[in-house]
Amino acid sequence: MRSEECTVRVSGKELLADIGNTHFHIYDGQRVVHLSCDEAIKQYSHTPLKYISVKHTLEKRVTQIEGWINISDILSIEGEYETMGVDRKALCLSHPEGVFVDAGSAITVDVVERGKYLGGYIFPGIKAMLEGYACISPVLETDLNERIDLSKLPTTTKEQISYGIIASIKTLIEKHTQGKQLYFTGGDGKLLAGFFEDAIYDETLVFKGIEHALQTNEK
Amino acid sequence: MRSEECTVRVSGKELLADIGNTHFHIYDGQRVVHLSCDEAIKQYSHTPLKYISVKHTLEKRVTQIEGWINISDILSIEGEYETMGVDRKALCLSHPEGVFVDAGSAITVDVVERGKYLGGYIFPGIKAMLEGYACISPVLETDLNERIDLSKLPTTTKEQISYGIIASIKTLIEKHTQGKQLYFTGGDGKLLAGFFEDAIYDETLVFKGIEHALQTNEK
Repeated sequence: MRSEECTVRVSGKELLADIGNTHFHIYDGQRVVHLSCDEAIKQYSHTPLKYISVKHTLEKRVTQIEGWINISDILSIEGEYETMGVDRKALCLSHPEGVFVDAGSAITVDVVERGKYLGGYIFPGIKAMLEGYACISPVLETDLNERIDLSKLPTTTKEQISYGIIASIKTLIEKHTQGKQLYFTGGDGKLLAGFFEDAIYDETLVFKGIEHALQTNEK
Repeated sequence: MRSEECTVRVSGKELLADIGNTHFHIYDGQRVVHLSCDEAIKQYSHTPLKYISVKHTLEKRVTQIEGWINISDILSIEGEYETMGVDRKALCLSHPEGVFVDAGSAITVDVVERGKYLGGYIFPGIKAMLEGYACISPVLETDLNERIDLSKLPTTTKEQISYGIIASIKTLIEKHTQGKQLYFTGGDGKLLAGFFEDAIYDETLVFKGIEHALQTNEK
């Protein structure tokens, strides 16, 4: 990624940030940039922004930055559970109904019906899965075949691992979609969305949910 | 496990061993014991046995033991692929037809029809999956709810992780069973078999496959 692509436009519109386990995601109302923690603080510490965060180890450092406001507390959705990550709440607030998949370091799947959270589940992210195989045995160390053909049973180790990852995620998600719109976001969201028919990939979903919460809060 | 349970009966029947990634499995025709590499060599280095092995780093050490014969080369099944683990070949030779699941450090699923291997896939084992979640974030560090209710969408982190592991494995395996008998073996085989109707758990399956290969080889 070139350096000019790593800075979002500081327009009249307020910046929003989603602090995840591995990346900072910053949104200016049009575009999202993905930065490491250090890069984000270096580039944006003098720019006011509102943020949500699941990276609790970073809280102390981020709280000290003047002009950065943690708005995690204003996000809530009917049916949420106590330890539900604020980024998942935001994602589920982006549209009133659907199956929402955030494919990042973990892959979360959440089902929302008429604005109510019904539940969900969590897979390890694709990178974590591949590392898991590699730790079991060197013969299982491989990268993902991103174009794995799911229509037939594979017969090589790389294909069998790729199939194990993609087909298990796909089959379970399909079971819960049942006519609902399927939304993907996150670093591997585009890749996974490609294995489904009529899935929507939108890297701004979490921010749409934050905007929805801010609007509701203002009322 | 008590120490007397860690030794199989040295009867007239030849001992068989399956050397896996983490354990030695030794079979006397009736019972299987599961030992670490060091324990197995200590207890059985003076007892003749025939073995198969996927633990290539151990080969040099094991080859030097007099009376231990590596019979990996006699195992073959129609449709096998070049790098297919010998323990999976053995498992697939245990019955002429079925879906065979070995739930150990990795979980392999293999489909056999009329004695022919059709293909399969590989999941990380349950332990590797749980370690994967824990590495992503401390909030995802949990043990498995072994009695997870798969009939409803969960709403706690532990349940959502347990659901992610068990439901994804179950849903994909069910897709391939389609009237075939489902067989489970391996350390987590009994646990996983409990989530399926009419599944057979048999910790001797790999050895039944080895015995079948030995009989075929003698003819």
